[in-house]
Amino acid sequence: MGSGKILVAQGGGPTAVINQSLVGVALEARRFRDVTRVYGALHGVRGIVDEEFVDLTRETSHNLELVAATPSSALGSTRDKPDDKYCAEIFNVLRAHEIEHFFYIGGNDSSDTVRIVSEQARAAGYPLRAIHIPKTIDNDLVGSDHTPGFPSAARFVAQAFAGANLDNAALPGVYVGVVMGRHAGFLTAAAALGKKFPDDGPHLVYLPERTFSIEAFLADVKAIHERHGRCVVAVSEGIHDASGKPIATLLAREVEKDAHGNVQLSGTGALADLLCDEIKAKLGIKRVRGDTFGYLQRSFIGCVSDVDQREAREVGEKAVQYAFWGDRDGSVAIRRTGFYSADYALLPLSDVAGKTRTMEDEFIAPSGTDVTDAFRLYLRPLLGSGMPDAFRLRCARVAKILKP
Amino acid sequence: MGSGKILVAQGGGPTAVINQSLVGVALEARRFRDVTRVYGALHGVRGIVDEEFVDLTRETSHNLELVAATPSSALGSTRDKPDDKYCAEIFNVLRAHEIEHFFYIGGNDSSDTVRIVSEQARAAGYPLRAIHIPKTIDNDLVGSDHTPGFPSAARFVAQAFAGANLDNAALPGVYVGVVMGRHAGFLTAAAALGKKFPDDGPHLVYLPERTFSIEAFLADVKAIHERHGRCVVAVSEGIHDASGKPIATLLAREVEKDAHGNVQLSGTGALADLLCDEIKAKLGIKRVRGDTFGYLQRSFIGCVSDVDQREAREVGEKAVQYAFWGDRDGSVAIRRTGFYSADYALLPLSDVAGKTRTMEDEFIAPSGTDVTDAFRLYLRPLLGSGMPDAFRLRCARVAKILKP
Repeated sequence: MGSGKILVAQGGGPTAVINQSLVGVALEARRFRDVTRVYGALHGVRGIVDEEFVDLTRETSHNLELVAATPSSALGSTRDKPDDKYCAEIFNVLRAHEIEHFFYIGGNDSSDTVRIVSEQARAAGYPLRAIHIPKTIDNDLVGSDHTPGFPSAARFVAQAFAGANLDNAALPGVYVGVVMGRHAGFLTAAAALGKKFPDDGPHLVYLPERTFSIEAFLADVKAIHERHGRCVVAVSEGIHDASGKPIATLLAREVEKDAHGNVQLSGTGALADLLCDEIKAKLGIKRVRGDTFGYLQRSFIGCVSDVDQREAREVGEKAVQYAFWGDRDGSVAIRRTGFYSADYALLPLSDVAGKTRTMEDEFIAPSGTDVTDAFRLYLRPLLGSGMPDAFRLRCARVAKILKP
Repeated sequence: MGSGKILVAQGGGPTAVINQSLVGVALEARRFRDVTRVYGALHGVRGIVDEEFVDLTRETSHNLELVAATPSSALGSTRDKPDDKYCAEIFNVLRAHEIEHFFYIGGNDSSDTVRIVSEQARAAGYPLRAIHIPKTIDNDLVGSDHTPGFPSAARFVAQAFAGANLDNAALPGVYVGVVMGRHAGFLTAAAALGKKFPDDGPHLVYLPERTFSIEAFLADVKAIHERHGRCVVAVSEGIHDASGKPIATLLAREVEKDAHGNVQLSGTGALADLLCDEIKAKLGIKRVRGDTFGYLQRSFIGCVSDVDQREAREVGEKAVQYAFWGDRDGSVAIRRTGFYSADYALLPLSDVAGKTRTMEDEFIAPSGTDVTDAFRLYLRPLLGSGMPDAFRLRCARVAKILKP
């Protein structure tokens, strides 16, 4: 063991439980006698190259617990994706500070960052142990049953659709809710868990795993509206046509891309408005409302899965254990071992980095606009305890007198 | 006392606690020996003219309690506003069913409906006791300290901004959240209760009580962004220019109006997108995101103020007591009697109907883009118990080595 200094950082989009993983690292690391300092880099890899570190060892464990329960990245995040030059800068800083253990909490892109840093360190002969700690509301990491952050976001989406369904039942019409998820439909599919009675919405769920056609969409909405007098629709922001072109880009608005080349889909209500305008124009339905859940679904304070909280904490703790008791770099993965129980494994970084999991076929109904019971069984335990429930009146109709 | 039949209905936009009032009426009414039947009209006044009644007396009290805790109007709602002809139809139905007590749970427009029905009944010599039970997330009824439904929606907005602020701190930029509220800014102002530390957002709050100017808005955002490196903005959907024209209608999109002549403002992300586009174009800030809270804020299941729940229940109970032990029609109002305690009063319908309360000047900071401590003191107890709290790291910076 060298200096005993470890570094932890958070990358990518924040989640409701990402600080559980941070605090899991910080508190578990201090149980190892070789650890002298736990540094946190501000705003991910950007904070490493800028030497923007805080000393988490100087935090009280009490405040760390309070921060753990607070959503969004307490250290700040970044969308930077290091290339070779960027990584060379990272090594210079790690060397200068004698840091030999690096923990990066993030999703797809962050796991790729860890892989590059790990490979560059090996090539440079620098003794770095680099561990990727999973986090993404998209649930799109391969090798994991699910990813920390997804269950809480899924809980928000399920609760939002449970409420939107009740609202739509009171004032009938068409309601379109647009949910985050570029390539993977898991979060959009979570809308189905907001449904209780057979005639409840969401009646239609559109996932990026299936090709989206405006014509088929309008026919589906028309059929549901004729049957129920109303229609609640869950749509992924990532829906695309047969050529793979996002439906959101069918609009005239300019397209914004991030450092990873991803088209910006969130933070605008354009897709919901486009779909609502189509329904009004082509189906002649008057009351059509669209909501884009946007950033609420990943950072809402006070809608968190307790299962998600404890697992996010554990992946942080396990990462430290793998780093100090193991002999290789890797990515921490969640495995399902019971209904419901989880355990953890360390996967090779190359098995996870840059790969995207999408919804398995067994989770998507043959219609393409609903989920299966397999998906409901998969997701329900992750949503945690205390899920609010919806009840309805079931009393008898009174006989009409004037117009019987 | 006549037939002993009473009728209750729900009008206008649903809230998270509107069924508490419904169940308050249903259960309290059965304690009066003269009451033989408690009917509920489906979809408000529309259900009365269509004779669409259910017999709430045939509900179990257990299920009524479960429905009370479920958001959105369990009987269904309507946007219909009865005129003279409509009211004549209502009387025919009430007469035919020998209903002599009418309770209507709703907001501004619903209180006006009760006033019309009450006056028409008196003119027609029909012995009707009509009581308006307050409900609106807009908090815009005159004569009440606040209205049931507002505290729970305010809690959602405060929690949403607390989370959005954390998200924006992690990935800095400009965030614009658009909140419901056509004429009254109370719900938008609730965003300020999501703020904890002095540099937290929302940094700017735009209310319909003040004239909105795009130029002043851009200057405000620029100043905050330069000071904090980020900016979180709360905007009411009802913001308007000096002529009173809604900013939302500056867009090319066609304008939809309801039966009350109100321009449709919710259910579209257009206003947020307009403001974000202006910020990107005029200020050159790259990361600009807009969310429109839409229907989530009034029907989200699982984000309810316990204070709101109990008051919504009590206005329903008090309405029945006023009806049977009082001698006049009226509108139930909430009065604040302590910090915090509430009591109830019955106001003349003409004091409430068709009038709109807006935010008092003492609640709005002189800058016009913030609330006062008087507003914070006003709102905080209404949000109820168990409000989630946000914590941050406060540990020491590590000295730089390479670039000290």
